[in-house]
Amino acid sequence: MLTISLDTSSKEPLYQQIYRHIRHAIESGDVAPREKLPSKRRLASYLKVSLSTVETAYAQLKAEGYIETKMKSGCYAAEIQPLERVRPPLRPKLLREKTGLSPFLYDFRTDRVDPEAFPFSVWAKLTRKVLSEGGKELLETAYPKGLYELRETIAEYLRRFRGMDVLPEQIVIGAGWEYLFTLIIQLLGHRCCYGVENPGYQKVSKILHSLDCPVSYLPVEAEGISLSALERTSVEVLHVTPSHHFPLGIVTTAQRRRELLRWANGGNRYIIEDDYDSEFRYEGRPIPALAEMDHNGRVIYIKTFAKILAPSFRIAYMVLPLTLLEQYEARLLFYACTVSSIEQRVLRDFIGDGYLERHLNRSRNLYKKRRDIFIETIKKSALGSKVEIFGEDAGMHLLLRVQGMTEHELVAKARRRGISLNGLSRYYIDPAEALQNTVIAGYAGWQDQRLRQGVTALIEAWEKGSTEP
Amino acid sequence: MLTISLDTSSKEPLYQQIYRHIRHAIESGDVAPREKLPSKRRLASYLKVSLSTVETAYAQLKAEGYIETKMKSGCYAAEIQPLERVRPPLRPKLLREKTGLSPFLYDFRTDRVDPEAFPFSVWAKLTRKVLSEGGKELLETAYPKGLYELRETIAEYLRRFRGMDVLPEQIVIGAGWEYLFTLIIQLLGHRCCYGVENPGYQKVSKILHSLDCPVSYLPVEAEGISLSALERTSVEVLHVTPSHHFPLGIVTTAQRRRELLRWANGGNRYIIEDDYDSEFRYEGRPIPALAEMDHNGRVIYIKTFAKILAPSFRIAYMVLPLTLLEQYEARLLFYACTVSSIEQRVLRDFIGDGYLERHLNRSRNLYKKRRDIFIETIKKSALGSKVEIFGEDAGMHLLLRVQGMTEHELVAKARRRGISLNGLSRYYIDPAEALQNTVIAGYAGWQDQRLRQGVTALIEAWEKGSTEP
Repeated sequence: MLTISLDTSSKEPLYQQIYRHIRHAIESGDVAPREKLPSKRRLASYLKVSLSTVETAYAQLKAEGYIETKMKSGCYAAEIQPLERVRPPLRPKLLREKTGLSPFLYDFRTDRVDPEAFPFSVWAKLTRKVLSEGGKELLETAYPKGLYELRETIAEYLRRFRGMDVLPEQIVIGAGWEYLFTLIIQLLGHRCCYGVENPGYQKVSKILHSLDCPVSYLPVEAEGISLSALERTSVEVLHVTPSHHFPLGIVTTAQRRRELLRWANGGNRYIIEDDYDSEFRYEGRPIPALAEMDHNGRVIYIKTFAKILAPSFRIAYMVLPLTLLEQYEARLLFYACTVSSIEQRVLRDFIGDGYLERHLNRSRNLYKKRRDIFIETIKKSALGSKVEIFGEDAGMHLLLRVQGMTEHELVAKARRRGISLNGLSRYYIDPAEALQNTVIAGYAGWQDQRLRQGVTALIEAWEKGSTEP
Repeated sequence: MLTISLDTSSKEPLYQQIYRHIRHAIESGDVAPREKLPSKRRLASYLKVSLSTVETAYAQLKAEGYIETKMKSGCYAAEIQPLERVRPPLRPKLLREKTGLSPFLYDFRTDRVDPEAFPFSVWAKLTRKVLSEGGKELLETAYPKGLYELRETIAEYLRRFRGMDVLPEQIVIGAGWEYLFTLIIQLLGHRCCYGVENPGYQKVSKILHSLDCPVSYLPVEAEGISLSALERTSVEVLHVTPSHHFPLGIVTTAQRRRELLRWANGGNRYIIEDDYDSEFRYEGRPIPALAEMDHNGRVIYIKTFAKILAPSFRIAYMVLPLTLLEQYEARLLFYACTVSSIEQRVLRDFIGDGYLERHLNRSRNLYKKRRDIFIETIKKSALGSKVEIFGEDAGMHLLLRVQGMTEHELVAKARRRGISLNGLSRYYIDPAEALQNTVIAGYAGWQDQRLRQGVTALIEAWEKGSTEP
């Protein structure tokens, strides 16, 4: 039986009310499958609505397959079986979502940069300029590898500051290094074996596992990743951080770089060079990139802007060697560029107009000063003679090795006082392989005065604190 | 032999010139491995530079592993083997990169929308507002699934306009549906078999192939994807466009929707519902989403903003069913959100302040009018009686089937006159399965007057044109 009661005071259009009632009647079985429905004219006159209102409702029901019309015979309910609920209602445990704000009093984790250091007003000004100049082309599909003018600007930047000679055509812009890394895996295949540093940046392994790639973990020595270990594996693609190893802070030696390149030349092998923080080198010049030394097209260079601008900027690029360019274009060019046209233009101006260089010089001085404050505060403290500092020549973090305490004690005592920092062992596949009693502390995301307080609080926690919760 | 000649008029710092000369001497073998280098003091006095200049150069060489220092004995060249060039210099064929501008006089391809229709000035205004209000939190790392307030706004939008009841926690923001699709594949695994529509959107298959997933192609019938074909496969994950099939324009019937949901309930199966253009329905209301009818957590809903804003916006979202939420959070939450914080805030305001709704209403009317112009111009033309139009109830394209000509002739004759449009067969795995003599024409990205001219030119090309180049 079809019953329709219209509510003329409702905001819901009349045709939609009719549609909804009939749909419900058919879904619930009140109108049986193949049962004839009243003609549009009869229903309109019965409901005291216009014929076109009923026609619109019937048209919608027909478009969705709830009714069928037969020539000269009218409308019939379609055969709709009820939808069962096969599982009990779901009550998932929802994760409490963490915001960017740290719950800790002092947070020495390494993924923080100083938002105050970023020249936000310049970025805002350039964005306004792009928006006010930008016409149609801001809305057109961008070329999949990214805005050509941005890639030209990056090629010029690499020439000037990294001594790399690359064509804009080799550069691919993407929304973060993680995304670009998934593209590289699609390019090189997920069946070949990937080598990663141990210890190393955990996300690299997570991405490889998520894409089901075989992974070999390679120990890191004083010279860089272990070549003898590498040669005992069947690794075909190696991910490395040669300019500044994460987290140990080691610079791969010139000799080891050559050995790695020779290893790659010895087969159809590739090296993914993750140059995440080469700009922040406090003693001397940035270490030359492996990609600069590579004459045989074996190195894919990846660079994120998250570390040099701010983590919220989802822009990174990779430089493909010429050996892989045709393959990339043939197989992966169908992926649309993942970065908005507006931000690509703003970044082009930010680099091209010299703001990036100035920002980097400023940040380098700022972070160097903070590093010095960190070290000085430690050295002058009561624990000064018991703390060995290393990995401090570059980057935004350093390592602290403390005599007479275990890593667990170091982390737990700090946490008891609201201070967050990570032990070195978490970056190892087998935590037992790590140097004992060593923690990692990021110092970039701090104001000077607060950093002094934080380090002092940390020392106090270690000196006097308890590990009991 | 080490020879160093300094250029005091050069912009290159002196320490860097010294560094460069020594590095070159070691790399070229002019200084032999393990050869002793002059002491810093001697070199400084010989070159007439300060001691600290030489110290800086030596420190850099040491950091990069070109020299080694021995206690009280001085500096020695490290053992550096020369880098061979194992392959001939590479000269890749560089693809000429296409810009967004079409090389055609008239371009009826389907991936174009009208940039003039987008309220760019509103977007610019909201961006300025976000930039002027935004402080630190614009630069902090965003939550991996995206800005919570944007996801709340989208949940509210889905409730109002799609009748979907979802939690913000179920929503994941990403830089385009392609990226989100790769996340889904990582979530569900690349070993299970994926079903795709045939004909269908080619990128879906390309992504699946690129990630090495088994794919089954399923024919599309008048009611939607073929259920009997589906049941003969081992498909576990089905990608469909039920509200408006691409490219055929078919709406999956209510009965077929129920059958698909029942199929998914019958095993650990999932349906990926790609709701790419449900807003642009010209007769009646939008077709309800499969996700709305799904009570058992079997549907992943994907929606791009590229079609409703402009192609340059790389923002899309997916709604995960509650069944998959914990798994997603446990396994994929390490991926950082790929959309910039600034654009997420702008989009939140664009939707929340009602601009999206207004824009959609305006675009719908605009595109409906263009569709009507297209159809009317065809009908009134000399070929009017020979052209059958279908798939015109929704979306931004329609299909034209022309009596007495092959698809090849239709496409070739148009191209001869500088008109681009695609034949239907290119969307089929086996082109022979396609309806013959059918082409697809997009009409959304046109001004009215120009569209009239374009359609008139197309008819003329078909009537009188030659297929010879």
